[in-house]
Amino acid sequence: MLEAVIRKIQPADEAGRKKVLAKLDRLTKPVGSLGRLEELAADFVAMTGEEHPKVPRSAIFTFAADHGVAEEGVSAYPSAVTAQMVFNFLSGGAAVNVLAAHVGADVRVVDIGVAHEFGLLPGLISRKVGLGTRNLFREPAMARNQATDALEIGISLAYEAAREGISLLGTGDMGIGNTTPSAAITAVMTGRPVAEVTGRGTGIDDATHARKIRVIEAALQRHRPDPNAPLDVLTKIGGFEIAGLAGLILGAAANRTPVVLDGFIAGAAALIAVRFQPLCREYLIASHRSAERGHQVALNKLGLKPLLDLDLRLGEGTGATLGIGLVQAAIKILTHMATFDEAGVSDKLS
Amino acid sequence: MLEAVIRKIQPADEAGRKKVLAKLDRLTKPVGSLGRLEELAADFVAMTGEEHPKVPRSAIFTFAADHGVAEEGVSAYPSAVTAQMVFNFLSGGAAVNVLAAHVGADVRVVDIGVAHEFGLLPGLISRKVGLGTRNLFREPAMARNQATDALEIGISLAYEAAREGISLLGTGDMGIGNTTPSAAITAVMTGRPVAEVTGRGTGIDDATHARKIRVIEAALQRHRPDPNAPLDVLTKIGGFEIAGLAGLILGAAANRTPVVLDGFIAGAAALIAVRFQPLCREYLIASHRSAERGHQVALNKLGLKPLLDLDLRLGEGTGATLGIGLVQAAIKILTHMATFDEAGVSDKLS
Repeated sequence: MLEAVIRKIQPADEAGRKKVLAKLDRLTKPVGSLGRLEELAADFVAMTGEEHPKVPRSAIFTFAADHGVAEEGVSAYPSAVTAQMVFNFLSGGAAVNVLAAHVGADVRVVDIGVAHEFGLLPGLISRKVGLGTRNLFREPAMARNQATDALEIGISLAYEAAREGISLLGTGDMGIGNTTPSAAITAVMTGRPVAEVTGRGTGIDDATHARKIRVIEAALQRHRPDPNAPLDVLTKIGGFEIAGLAGLILGAAANRTPVVLDGFIAGAAALIAVRFQPLCREYLIASHRSAERGHQVALNKLGLKPLLDLDLRLGEGTGATLGIGLVQAAIKILTHMATFDEAGVSDKLS
Repeated sequence: MLEAVIRKIQPADEAGRKKVLAKLDRLTKPVGSLGRLEELAADFVAMTGEEHPKVPRSAIFTFAADHGVAEEGVSAYPSAVTAQMVFNFLSGGAAVNVLAAHVGADVRVVDIGVAHEFGLLPGLISRKVGLGTRNLFREPAMARNQATDALEIGISLAYEAAREGISLLGTGDMGIGNTTPSAAITAVMTGRPVAEVTGRGTGIDDATHARKIRVIEAALQRHRPDPNAPLDVLTKIGGFEIAGLAGLILGAAANRTPVVLDGFIAGAAALIAVRFQPLCREYLIASHRSAERGHQVALNKLGLKPLLDLDLRLGEGTGATLGIGLVQAAIKILTHMATFDEAGVSDKLS
């Protein structure tokens, strides 16, 4: 399945992009004066191949999972918070619920590996690969088949969303401890030192931060994940939600569905996805630059320029929602504005 | 009237800000993890004094006026475009219409000095001070009473909006040539060289840009506007829409109505308003950093940090609309999210 999806991904439609840019120049505004909104409209058309796009139905997929490495004391919160926040998402009280509603996007909560048995829970998409990963400081985070399972879950969800008519996806994540595997992955995939890409997550103190760096350095020394083998990286130092997000990106790209990335965890997932298939990068929109150190390093490697820089570091998909709002604005500019001819406005002095 | 308004402006409510920041820390997210959205929520409460704010009704005031200095060939577009764009605003085809609708804000179009007699035109707020300013390269842009008239028009509109229940304002502007007076004002009020604050407006070429700088330098030498006398500055090198916006800011501050600034023209108006009454700065939100050179200089002087940096340079209020969207998001975070207690989520490890 993974191989078939990777083969299916095609480059974005550059001819479509050119047509859109030409159309934008006929609208009643100085050429290029809406800056990145114009680029975003052109990107969206190049991604989807739709020259006259509608404002897309959109959904944030918030993948939740736990991390064995949390037992090393790398987070400011206990692991129990992952499951507690799943309940909070389902009752609509979390930041991502509020911000997704603000832009008219759905929130889909996926249990891909929370260390809690939810049983039947209305609204929860149950795709549990395990009760949290193992402690990557001591052993590989997951079995190889768990990594492929998690990837394929993400792929399947992207395909199902496309069939439902959802044509814009946002990434979300919840998992106490998940900046640790994300930093580990970012270090491996970018070749940068662990200390440079390891931040303070939910807000850890200096001592915890130093321990987090040591834990990651030791894990990389122990496992020596191969940056050219993304499945190896996921297996040894990944997380279920990171694998799910990487799969979601691949599945979306195969369906020509643009994906609005949230922050640091999404960046790590994108680094994995792009290593499977470099072309999937053409379907990515970076919503914001996280305050989490290391995110900019990932964005540089991905060649993506974030739309927003608001010192966000919450995750859940919160930044992605704001990015979706900007994509909607860009599409409306492209499709709702009058042209110089229609409005009887004089074009530039020649 | 101006003096009374200036005296009425009070500092923002810092006690209210502290209460909000404490409330934000009880919501289900790591402390401070929504970065500038949290600051924005606190700013809004400090400005309005409302501890439990509703998502505000909001309006963009787009002031339109012409500029005598356009005859020096400082713009890429003919002056006729100002009036043509007024018609475009009224029929809903301009960028600001599209983006204001996206965030649910009204657009109020004010003819404060367009060089065209519109007659009775539904939807247009007619407050014409003159048929465009005079050419500031050769003589003072306006008579002193025109400057006070334009200021008081802005003030009155802010008061009327407050009475209507509009509790968030955005600034907008339309005026071919208006980056020339804005650059002149920015140079005078910040003490920076003209060349440093003079950009390419709607997209002028090198020769026109060089001429624009020479025109402004010559005007400043001729008129020697006094940076300590904002009315003198407006009279000699201002524009009617800039004066109207400065009045709008003062009137809004007197009513504790937050004002979301658009780009470079708004920045020049804010520099004037703040010189009349430094406290009005506490009611300003900078929506974005314009691609127009000189805007950052104005923001530095104002002590404002823009929310967005999207290479916008259109004006009309387009950037302000996106800022309004973020203010709405910030208020929803403050008022719609669950607390740790409500959601049964564990707080930080102690």
